Amino acid sequence: MGDAQQRIQPRTLKGFRDYLPQAAIPREWLIARAREVYRSYGFSPIDTPALEYEEILAGKGGQESEKQMFRFEDAGGRRVAMRFDLTVPLARFVAQYAHELGTPFKRYHIGPVWRGEKPQKGRYREFLQCDFDTVGTESIAADIESGLVIADLLRALGFEAFTVRVNDRRVLAGLLETLELVECSAAVLRALDKLDKIGPDGVAAELEREAGVDGARAGRVLELAAIEGAPGDVLERVGALIGGSETGAAGVEALQRFVSAVEIAGAPAGAFCIQPSLARGLDYYTGIVFETTLDELPLIGSVCGGGRYDDLAQRFTKTPLPGVGASLGVDRLLAAMEELGMIEGATTPADVFLPWFSPERLEDYLALAARLRGAGFAVEFYPEPKKLGAQLKYADRRKFKLALIVGDDEWQAGCCQVKDLESGDSRSVSLSAESGDLTAALGEALKDRRGASGRPRS
Amino acid sequence: MGDAQQRIQPRTLKGFRDYLPQAAIPREWLIARAREVYRSYGFSPIDTPALEYEEILAGKGGQESEKQMFRFEDAGGRRVAMRFDLTVPLARFVAQYAHELGTPFKRYHIGPVWRGEKPQKGRYREFLQCDFDTVGTESIAADIESGLVIADLLRALGFEAFTVRVNDRRVLAGLLETLELVECSAAVLRALDKLDKIGPDGVAAELEREAGVDGARAGRVLELAAIEGAPGDVLERVGALIGGSETGAAGVEALQRFVSAVEIAGAPAGAFCIQPSLARGLDYYTGIVFETTLDELPLIGSVCGGGRYDDLAQRFTKTPLPGVGASLGVDRLLAAMEELGMIEGATTPADVFLPWFSPERLEDYLALAARLRGAGFAVEFYPEPKKLGAQLKYADRRKFKLALIVGDDEWQAGCCQVKDLESGDSRSVSLSAESGDLTAALGEALKDRRGASGRPRS
Repeated sequence: MGDAQQRIQPRTLKGFRDYLPQAAIPREWLIARAREVYRSYGFSPIDTPALEYEEILAGKGGQESEKQMFRFEDAGGRRVAMRFDLTVPLARFVAQYAHELGTPFKRYHIGPVWRGEKPQKGRYREFLQCDFDTVGTESIAADIESGLVIADLLRALGFEAFTVRVNDRRVLAGLLETLELVECSAAVLRALDKLDKIGPDGVAAELEREAGVDGARAGRVLELAAIEGAPGDVLERVGALIGGSETGAAGVEALQRFVSAVEIAGAPAGAFCIQPSLARGLDYYTGIVFETTLDELPLIGSVCGGGRYDDLAQRFTKTPLPGVGASLGVDRLLAAMEELGMIEGATTPADVFLPWFSPERLEDYLALAARLRGAGFAVEFYPEPKKLGAQLKYADRRKFKLALIVGDDEWQAGCCQVKDLESGDSRSVSLSAESGDLTAALGEALKDRRGASGRPRS
Repeated sequence: MGDAQQRIQPRTLKGFRDYLPQAAIPREWLIARAREVYRSYGFSPIDTPALEYEEILAGKGGQESEKQMFRFEDAGGRRVAMRFDLTVPLARFVAQYAHELGTPFKRYHIGPVWRGEKPQKGRYREFLQCDFDTVGTESIAADIESGLVIADLLRALGFEAFTVRVNDRRVLAGLLETLELVECSAAVLRALDKLDKIGPDGVAAELEREAGVDGARAGRVLELAAIEGAPGDVLERVGALIGGSETGAAGVEALQRFVSAVEIAGAPAGAFCIQPSLARGLDYYTGIVFETTLDELPLIGSVCGGGRYDDLAQRFTKTPLPGVGASLGVDRLLAAMEELGMIEGATTPADVFLPWFSPERLEDYLALAARLRGAGFAVEFYPEPKKLGAQLKYADRRKFKLALIVGDDEWQAGCCQVKDLESGDSRSVSLSAESGDLTAALGEALKDRRGASGRPRS
């Protein structure tokens, strides 16, 4: 090596990205908060491999995300593919270990997935998914709990103003029953999904063109989709519209119970609203569906969505496995936190910086740092006895909160300067471990820190 | 769907594995402890993609792990490969962002890597690496700190009896200088690496066969490798053996300072020992090297190894980037924890189980669970009002610690039964939030829990 000619240009693969500390610290913070919330409800972690047999992932066919799979032949001649979501691996997993896992099975899974999408701003070919699901029960308790998890997640991340829009797929199904349009439901869902984009007239035109739905019945579908307001009012109007359909009534009843229960269980008043137009794609969901937007940044899109499905793993097992779950939009939430000034931008996870100021005192510095770590403080020691100014510049750039300055005079006097790197204020504190002065001073100066840096400003 | 014929057998790709809750919970616990230790020293998290241009990973050629890469052509015709370690991506990363990162740059990186090895017991084609490095400084302070990190990692995981064997590559290099065998150093390293397997006579024979080293000089190399004992004695004998070599003397001096400093800074007495035969492979390391074994399970091999290198990123940049770091052996440590009975084996991360006992009280249960979560307890609510016995069986199987039993009578009386699921003992406690009795009782019953379950028994 050594020849410039042989050097390889260091670069990230097209469509992929690196996480530098400035981005990795808040992402790790967010994941830790999500994990705490999931665990507080008894969801267990699981993990599955990045690579699966291609037929495991590709069996269903047709979906966009599936077409975008990274797939290849391994050295043993097996057709393999990188997972493009965490739901298909979950389906394979619960089918494979059904007996061992038992039901209800509550899991969370946080891990990267890969899709060979056309790269565009904010979209990458590798991204993190952060899902939770309760599998093996049809109980509305699991639906309600999923809503509570979403509210807890958002609050744990520091968001106070958010809206969880909920709907039940059975409401529209019920209306289609009364309109004798059941066999058109795929076309209706497809058209309704475009409501925001093409407007009611566009939807009506598409319904007539694609499924021969006449204007009167299209009007009723659009009337349902347009209902909004307080949950009680919405449900009353929905109930009137769907008439005697049992399916529809079941949906209305579930929504009624859902919105009432989440509030009794302490979700923020008004955070949940019912949106009869909410469908979330064509297939898969069969009951309640959720989407969550941040009130301050509605255009960022849904930051947590999911719903109930009848049968997760039918491609792999004949045992029906109904469930409910949702997925936290890590990238969107980080973008929102950035935009809302909720991220400190530190490039160190430590709060306290310890410069190496007296060249002969290396062991003393290391012992001091170790003592403070033992007391629960994260302390970075600068590994070279450079000029103090250069070391403090390093600390400023990384946004340390405090520096502990101990030069020859301080070592002799048994004290140190605790310097606040934001205000520049300094105070002299005894180094004596017995006095406890230093740990008390650090505790006081860092009392607003909830542990991890990179957290939202509080 | 629905046809049994069309069902796909749910199975994991050959050579890969799933993590069920029982394995995922302790692994997540271990990773969280490692992250805390790394952060306490100011190491920052980073992440890099699973996929890189093949030439980024494959440039060096010849190494076993590189031959085992998963590589393929992506849909855009690019030659790509899955990372087989976290060191090559780090080299690419520091070269690519050198200016932005500054030095010293301290990072940790925890993530999966992929190698198409022949599957065997305990070896998989996907495994987690957990590395930390300090890049951009030659200071011995960074070497010493790496040793302290290793000791802190092992203690944070609950291991008290471990041995970190250290050596400095310059010691052997110095001896080879005095023996005029510098040009044979690769052959000497290769032979010494087999010392445990083929014994001193085998090493001497190989040295003669492969590099024409005569018996007298081979004997001196073997004499160095055989030195053991307390650090002071070892260094004295090593110093005598290497004679006047400056390189060797620098190695001895560094080792002397290292073992003294780690002890001053609070590492357990006797945890570090000097082993002059320690080489850690052929290339790459140029100064201090580490390997760590568990005293109770020495045969499990090294659980944390690393060392100092002169130039991390020479394949990508002409800027020399020296550094030091090590890698925590996650799989071996989990196997050791399992073998030493340090893992509880719970399949839930929650401590408290709340059965749904009164069918009409769903909302009350959900509100109670939410209140306890707000007080910091992880509470799983059973989503179906089955018979209490069936629900408690579910709780036992998952190894919950406590159950809160609230039936119709308890709801009416405003109390609950706090049942210890290990001992079977039960006591009646007021449900009143104002009294604080319930949170006090839970706090008392769980006071030995350090937060996460799956932790070592303490």
